[in-house]
Amino acid sequence: MPAVRLDADAWDAARLMAEHRLPGVVIVDDQDRPRCVLTGPEALGFVLPSYLLDDPALARVMDEESAEALCRERHDRTVGEVVADRGRPLPVVGLDTTLVEIALLMARERSPVVAVVADGRLLGAVTSARVLAALQSAGAGTP
Amino acid sequence: MPAVRLDADAWDAARLMAEHRLPGVVIVDDQDRPRCVLTGPEALGFVLPSYLLDDPALARVMDEESAEALCRERHDRTVGEVVADRGRPLPVVGLDTTLVEIALLMARERSPVVAVVADGRLLGAVTSARVLAALQSAGAGTP
Repeated sequence: MPAVRLDADAWDAARLMAEHRLPGVVIVDDQDRPRCVLTGPEALGFVLPSYLLDDPALARVMDEESAEALCRERHDRTVGEVVADRGRPLPVVGLDTTLVEIALLMARERSPVVAVVADGRLLGAVTSARVLAALQSAGAGTP
Repeated sequence: MPAVRLDADAWDAARLMAEHRLPGVVIVDDQDRPRCVLTGPEALGFVLPSYLLDDPALARVMDEESAEALCRERHDRTVGEVVADRGRPLPVVGLDTTLVEIALLMARERSPVVAVVADGRLLGAVTSARVLAALQSAGAGTP
């Protein structure tokens, strides 16, 4: 899962998620310290014009082409502005965290991703699908 | 995103998510009507032994191999039993729902997936990453 800085263009973050079919991207500060995850639904909330979010019935009476054209309008907002209004921090693990510890953290925090950090800087991220796969391949030899 | 029935083995649902690197699977009833999404973190909560979930400190003092061996133990629970204790319904759209309407629904419900239904039966599912990609390719010709 790629990382995007707080001061990056939010539109570019949405494009990254679209291109790589990602459910989210990790947001880091200017020291590459992980802060949170920007999720797909949040990116959609940013890409869509706010008056559509306020009144979804408008989307129904709008023809598809004009509605899509509206979504193309660039909004000059940074990732930091988009994620500013929520407090969900990203669960963080270190290089010595075990697979089972990561699985427990995800299950308890209901988080589909955790950040891997060394010396406070983001090294990468792990998704729940990867952890499930790792747990199951660890058990592949059993009946 | 594949669908799994309520009476399926929960372990098989977790395996499906691992194999296809999915953030979740759609759960349907015995008439193939969508009910909810089983997420990766929920699957991990099922795969892990409950005493580890109750006391995560145990994972730290356990060597990695024995912890993983515990995760291999099959729990004879159905998908329906795993998802029974929560009320988050899956957002549903029809074949005539527009791209922008789907995007709005995801943004408002904070849902990374919606089910596509005809005559009450599940036809498929759409993820937020796909919707972002579709919106952006619709605008690909603009500067």
